[in-house]
Amino acid sequence: MQAIVAFTTIVGAANVLTQAAEVAPYCQDWRGRYHGSVMAVIRPATTDEVSKVVQYCHANHIYVIPQGGNTGHCGGAAPTQHTPAIILSLSRLNHIHCIDTENQTITVGAGCTLGQIQTIASQHDRLFPLSLAAEGSCQIGGNLSTNAGGVQVLRYGNMRDLTLGLEVVLPDGNVLNSLSGLRKDNTGLDIKQLFIGAEGTLGIITAATLKLFPAIKHQTTALISLASPSDAVQLLNAAQLQFGDRLTAYELISHICMGLVTQHIPGAKLPLSETNEWYVLMEVSDTWEHSPLTEMVESFLMNQTSVIDAVIAQSLQQTQALWTLRESISEAQKKDGLSIKHDISVPTSQMEHFIQVTSRILQEDQADYRLQIFGHLGDGNLHFNVGKAPESQLDLVPLEKHINHLVYEQVKQVNGSISAEHGIGQLKNNELPRYADPVKIALMQQIKQALDPQGIMNPGKVYPSSSAS
Amino acid sequence: MQAIVAFTTIVGAANVLTQAAEVAPYCQDWRGRYHGSVMAVIRPATTDEVSKVVQYCHANHIYVIPQGGNTGHCGGAAPTQHTPAIILSLSRLNHIHCIDTENQTITVGAGCTLGQIQTIASQHDRLFPLSLAAEGSCQIGGNLSTNAGGVQVLRYGNMRDLTLGLEVVLPDGNVLNSLSGLRKDNTGLDIKQLFIGAEGTLGIITAATLKLFPAIKHQTTALISLASPSDAVQLLNAAQLQFGDRLTAYELISHICMGLVTQHIPGAKLPLSETNEWYVLMEVSDTWEHSPLTEMVESFLMNQTSVIDAVIAQSLQQTQALWTLRESISEAQKKDGLSIKHDISVPTSQMEHFIQVTSRILQEDQADYRLQIFGHLGDGNLHFNVGKAPESQLDLVPLEKHINHLVYEQVKQVNGSISAEHGIGQLKNNELPRYADPVKIALMQQIKQALDPQGIMNPGKVYPSSSAS
Repeated sequence: MQAIVAFTTIVGAANVLTQAAEVAPYCQDWRGRYHGSVMAVIRPATTDEVSKVVQYCHANHIYVIPQGGNTGHCGGAAPTQHTPAIILSLSRLNHIHCIDTENQTITVGAGCTLGQIQTIASQHDRLFPLSLAAEGSCQIGGNLSTNAGGVQVLRYGNMRDLTLGLEVVLPDGNVLNSLSGLRKDNTGLDIKQLFIGAEGTLGIITAATLKLFPAIKHQTTALISLASPSDAVQLLNAAQLQFGDRLTAYELISHICMGLVTQHIPGAKLPLSETNEWYVLMEVSDTWEHSPLTEMVESFLMNQTSVIDAVIAQSLQQTQALWTLRESISEAQKKDGLSIKHDISVPTSQMEHFIQVTSRILQEDQADYRLQIFGHLGDGNLHFNVGKAPESQLDLVPLEKHINHLVYEQVKQVNGSISAEHGIGQLKNNELPRYADPVKIALMQQIKQALDPQGIMNPGKVYPSSSAS
Repeated sequence: MQAIVAFTTIVGAANVLTQAAEVAPYCQDWRGRYHGSVMAVIRPATTDEVSKVVQYCHANHIYVIPQGGNTGHCGGAAPTQHTPAIILSLSRLNHIHCIDTENQTITVGAGCTLGQIQTIASQHDRLFPLSLAAEGSCQIGGNLSTNAGGVQVLRYGNMRDLTLGLEVVLPDGNVLNSLSGLRKDNTGLDIKQLFIGAEGTLGIITAATLKLFPAIKHQTTALISLASPSDAVQLLNAAQLQFGDRLTAYELISHICMGLVTQHIPGAKLPLSETNEWYVLMEVSDTWEHSPLTEMVESFLMNQTSVIDAVIAQSLQQTQALWTLRESISEAQKKDGLSIKHDISVPTSQMEHFIQVTSRILQEDQADYRLQIFGHLGDGNLHFNVGKAPESQLDLVPLEKHINHLVYEQVKQVNGSISAEHGIGQLKNNELPRYADPVKIALMQQIKQALDPQGIMNPGKVYPSSSAS
């Protein structure tokens, strides 16, 4: 086949995968929801090779599906029915270009894992703050393309906020070189913003210059019981006013989620009474090693009347035990059975109202639903998941669209988002017309048309399928 | 005239200014460098009125020049030779839509002044951190359109970083409603980013939802003498590692700038020896009122061998006196005579090298130049201005382009920016082809073409004039 010969010339035979067994792992997302087929997986090692591969695809109308660590939740990196197509794996662009501690920046290839970048930063007494469950295997190109979030957004922002410069191979193979390490640069449109969160539909991010932060030298973690999400929001506000940027995580966990963790995760133990409805895991951090954080947190919590009970970690081991309660929720949910997941955000001032109303609507719909609510309350981001009661015979699979509809309609009521941090991919692109501003969708399509008139970049994702390719 | 009748129908006769005396102040920038004429100044009061005015202009090919407080440095809000044209003043969209303290957001009309927003935030025990010299009269729509910076970017970021949502009237009169107060929203492209820093060339920002921050409860300011910019960068790095986000300002001032201030500003007095080459004004801030900031700063400065001398403000009055030294530099320069100004940024790790080399090149060019260097060192942003020695007969006016060239070529050498925070306007649009990535310029033009195919929005700005309108 002519295309395979051309790709082999560019990246070498060892990096053009065509055997079914080699290609298969790339053709399915990790949750096993999306499958497709491609003529080959191409593994370039340099930006120049990426550019040449894309040039060839552009000239021959071959669809290009960029793929990083393939850890996304919305099928954004999985093939669709569009043919002919290749998967373009960025895994071999895994070099740290340079770290500039004086400028507080690091420049990395798109295939570097998030964990790799965190480690290098830490070795230089700096922090790269993006932190999420897949950090060991997700790649920074994917984090950029989905504008990844995670537990530290409250303090450090999303991936977008951590990015100073990008190198991007455009749909025609041209290379945008905006690998700037500048914190202020107002020379015209900030073009790189287009590619962050575009899920590979406008081009392929090949490298990035990222912000580094001072390393954290002291940290205190507390688990707190509260009566309601409203109390949790008020405590959040009070904590922000006092701790300012020291507040680095503020996670809400419902009674039901906590129960799933203590039931399904060996060794997980709740150090507070199990009779409370809501829990908050709060972390405060400081670059100053002598900061009296523990005393500050103790005194703060004592003065908050909404706090029913609280425990402050007194050792690294206790800190890890508290974080295990939070970080095991997804695993505990999985062990408990299927749940219909919603990655949503709402203004924190609407949090109580949203949870109350949506919970009531769902319980009225089916008494057997069991709501598994947790998430990054500090960012207004909830994982509002719907499982079923133990022993219930309810089959959630055929109800998925119906449940999504019930939840998303309430999200819309409070001007929330149906995709807070996971993106759109092929999971939600056809939900957009109902939940996004039509003028925004029209603009998205104009931009797509301007940058990728052939529609070869990651087809069938992000844009509603009725209109854009 | 038909157009005037149409505009009068939309906004009322009182808000269609056509008399020369009424129109004149809008037709010139505050530095008096740019002049032009328009058929009228239109002053709509609502987004709907803006939309109708723009619809009319779109249908009749009338150029639209959006204008806020008209405080820009690059002529971005002044008319050009394009006719027929109107100035669309946003001044009457000056209402605070709402403040949501639980969600830490404020939604404002584009015509609100920055000072108005700061004041409202402060009344609610919150901080809106953008801070710059024109804050009493500049309008937030202009701050957004130029992605304004200022003294607190080091800690809080540029205007872009402070923005969660926008409402924008597009070049065809359609209204993009992205007035979201969400901190996480990954539903497709983040379209609002296009309009921030676009200087009104892609549409008219009519309202914005902005982030609020906890109010600062304690602050300490120090003035420090140092031997070199390199020492200042190293001190910056050490301060960041220790103080983290407490470091809210870090301003570099050269010996010459300090001398201009003490010479021309009544009452300005340097509380340190005048024999040092460089000064840094450092501010640390905390939301925690009991924070031992002064002790921290004292102990920090004592341990830094690069610190030649330092004074820490012991009262609000002393703090203001220190800030006066920094904030009077522009006025002192003006009193001293003409200077050729450059708002540039470079990676902080290149700061010493850039200042050394560029200073040498300029001094070799003309021994009578007198370099007036100061700026936001924490962001790598220098105001690298070139005046002349006292009593010199040198005429700087005809040398402006030559001097720009000498400075910008060195900026290019270190991958810096020729416009750090002031934007492009009509001052620097024709410099872009030499100093920006051609692929970036091509993308800017594609976006402009896609969103404003008629080219009616703020013509003659931002895009190089050889190609875009």
